[in-house]
Amino acid sequence: MKSKTDKKNQMIDAGLEIMYRKGYNATGIQEIVDNAGVPKGSFYNYFKNKEQFAVEILDHYTGEMLARQEHVLSNADLAPLARIESLYKAFVDEYVREGAFCLGCFAANLSQEMGDTSDKIRRAAEASIARMTRPVEVCLMEAREKGDISIVYDASILAVYIQNSWLGALMRMKASKSELSLMIFLEVLGKVILK
Amino acid sequence: MKSKTDKKNQMIDAGLEIMYRKGYNATGIQEIVDNAGVPKGSFYNYFKNKEQFAVEILDHYTGEMLARQEHVLSNADLAPLARIESLYKAFVDEYVREGAFCLGCFAANLSQEMGDTSDKIRRAAEASIARMTRPVEVCLMEAREKGDISIVYDASILAVYIQNSWLGALMRMKASKSELSLMIFLEVLGKVILK
Repeated sequence: MKSKTDKKNQMIDAGLEIMYRKGYNATGIQEIVDNAGVPKGSFYNYFKNKEQFAVEILDHYTGEMLARQEHVLSNADLAPLARIESLYKAFVDEYVREGAFCLGCFAANLSQEMGDTSDKIRRAAEASIARMTRPVEVCLMEAREKGDISIVYDASILAVYIQNSWLGALMRMKASKSELSLMIFLEVLGKVILK
Repeated sequence: MKSKTDKKNQMIDAGLEIMYRKGYNATGIQEIVDNAGVPKGSFYNYFKNKEQFAVEILDHYTGEMLARQEHVLSNADLAPLARIESLYKAFVDEYVREGAFCLGCFAANLSQEMGDTSDKIRRAAEASIARMTRPVEVCLMEAREKGDISIVYDASILAVYIQNSWLGALMRMKASKSELSLMIFLEVLGKVILK
């Protein structure tokens, strides 16, 4: 028999997989429970409603992304700026390897679709993006302390700029189904922004 | 009696207003015809389906945006780079004046929500963004010819970078409901990118 935690996690995993691809409004609860292999009644034992479910999926997604960031940004063999470049390059390499140019950033997608109609989802998406920006900021602070960067902005300002530009590049990748926007982002990041 | 063109335009205007705010999937055809003040049957006289309708709304939106761009970018009193800065500043000023930090770019929103599920809408959104990028590219080419810019990238590459970063800033504005991402975009655009 499945434990409570198993059931909840299965619904979150299935929900992320479906909602990431189709968006919030096109995702039905029936589809989620069918994919998770749990009875429909279970859904409401764990989540108040679909909105609350989306917030929990976002939190799960953010945790996974932070773990991936941590893995790259904590590499003490690289200088801080090289770590930031290698973080985005690792994401780009993965998209190019997969070749479908789908998905993008789940938090950005939800904030675009639901930003003006669900304040709860919007706040959770904004919090997610802010959390994912912070490790880049920490790395930029380290670069600044070492005198590795000439751009005068605060690390917090520059980190927000870089992260937002990255989300724009991901959006365009999803629209164009090509790697061009990602390649241009990496070029300008390395040769103009992190100088 | 309303003319054919009137009816079609009323549905497109109503559709843009609703779909811009709520997204594609949350917008119903009934709501559109109610807001346009036309009978539901009329919808299918003009549009094959909701997908085709979204493509026509996108085209209408793009035409309006291009006219606004043209108005600023053709100002011969300003140097080409100053025209690009004033284009984005005009958009930012409008968002700040309105204060709600809603909507963003309609084409970007649709490409985020529908990019992996409707190839027709995705292609139309990509074409829209590409059309809106082109006038910026033309201005950058003029700046390059005059020797006003030191960044070595082709105008086409730099225009794509600037436009995508702008779309990222708009996305973040919609998530954060604040002007911060827009202000940071303008700062980095003026002091780093257009140098």
